[in-house]
Amino acid sequence: MESNAPIGVFDSGVGGLTVVREIMRQIPGEEIIYFGDTARLPYGSKSKETIIGFSRQIVKFLRTKEVKAIVIACNTASAFALETISQENEIPVVGVVGPGAKVAVEATKNGKIGVIGTFGTVNSNIYTQYIRDINADIQVFSKACPLFVPLVEEGWLYDPVTIEVAERYFSELKSYGIDTMVLGCTHYPLLRHTLQKVIGEEVTLVNPAYETAISLKRVLQENNALRKDALPEHQFYVSDGAERFQSFANTILPCRVIETTDINIEKY
Amino acid sequence: MESNAPIGVFDSGVGGLTVVREIMRQIPGEEIIYFGDTARLPYGSKSKETIIGFSRQIVKFLRTKEVKAIVIACNTASAFALETISQENEIPVVGVVGPGAKVAVEATKNGKIGVIGTFGTVNSNIYTQYIRDINADIQVFSKACPLFVPLVEEGWLYDPVTIEVAERYFSELKSYGIDTMVLGCTHYPLLRHTLQKVIGEEVTLVNPAYETAISLKRVLQENNALRKDALPEHQFYVSDGAERFQSFANTILPCRVIETTDINIEKY
Repeated sequence: MESNAPIGVFDSGVGGLTVVREIMRQIPGEEIIYFGDTARLPYGSKSKETIIGFSRQIVKFLRTKEVKAIVIACNTASAFALETISQENEIPVVGVVGPGAKVAVEATKNGKIGVIGTFGTVNSNIYTQYIRDINADIQVFSKACPLFVPLVEEGWLYDPVTIEVAERYFSELKSYGIDTMVLGCTHYPLLRHTLQKVIGEEVTLVNPAYETAISLKRVLQENNALRKDALPEHQFYVSDGAERFQSFANTILPCRVIETTDINIEKY
Repeated sequence: MESNAPIGVFDSGVGGLTVVREIMRQIPGEEIIYFGDTARLPYGSKSKETIIGFSRQIVKFLRTKEVKAIVIACNTASAFALETISQENEIPVVGVVGPGAKVAVEATKNGKIGVIGTFGTVNSNIYTQYIRDINADIQVFSKACPLFVPLVEEGWLYDPVTIEVAERYFSELKSYGIDTMVLGCTHYPLLRHTLQKVIGEEVTLVNPAYETAISLKRVLQENNALRKDALPEHQFYVSDGAERFQSFANTILPCRVIETTDINIEKY
């Protein structure tokens, strides 16, 4: 593994930038090639076959940049495509679900974990499988929350409408007495304050992005592949709307994105 | 023009079925080939270039079925791609915006029309252009309502949350004293009752689907191309999730859809 090579990170759009932010904080020397599939987002309501197809095209594109590892910074794509992408590539592939599940298991005291995400992630039952592989005694309660992503995109982060929607979505989860809740979609950390208020201050919110960056660091260390050069030059690519992506990226990343390139992902 | 040939209709997903329903009612002998781009929906937040690219692929697919005319049953695709698709094809191409604008102009008494739709449709200003081409004295007030489509998909058609969102979106439109409002997205007729309640009973809601079917009928008559065979055999295609599409189609169409086929639209 070429230690100065970049890391490929992808998501359906901007959500994966919450993972990039954590990578930049925890292993700031690493160079990132990011791809956001803005022409075909969202992924959360689409089928496993379609998401695997999209992910294969993206990985093919990222590999033209000679990346040393790939991070699937999207819960739906991690749920549906991690296994296939790992099998088809000899470089390490890290998803967000495994790291998120691990932290949730460590955090729960009463053994009752809630998971919120898209239809795809929730119906795949992937978090339940990962969590119960670690500890089969834990009870997992899941709820698909399809309105959260459009609410984030509308910018209604602290809005009474968002609170009302969250109350509707969480009423059943609350009745089960969960003490930990996984934010199983990379957009959700942006709603964190509102979600915490609605689910209750006593519930621990788990953001898989943080632990994903730690997992990535560990994998690179194991392969003796941490970057030695200084001053990484990150690159950002999208399949649609480069300008809009970039202005959003600049609100959440600790570095300044000065160029985003539109590419035709369907050619890969 | 081969009068027994089918009509190609496309949309980003299920919304265009509200147009198909009107075509089936008004020219029930016609055979329809429908394509819903469920793998890449929604279209409303994506760029003009991307939507033109998607539309070209779909038209290429529809033309393999030897369609005699094409209906762009999506407001965003009509706004962005109607001109290009018309220029590139020798068969008639009908969009939903022109017919919708025409009815709105006929309906208004005070010359103040509201238009609601996706970001793409509203920012394109296409309804304003069409309306003012007919009557330059009319004032047009537009508002993008990006949460309505996910609310329809969640099934919250008569929900307090939907009412609250509509009140937020409509407060400015109401202050202008509009007497007519165009439902500029094919999903919105499904919210019709809730939207009527919020905007006020005195405001006429315009559903472009109805007038689009009339336009199509007129074009076919002018070309002496109304179908002569009885018993049309409609065909339904999608780029993802055929089963889910079909169950939705069966809730809104007057005929029973017994088969929906998944195709890879990126190959076209």
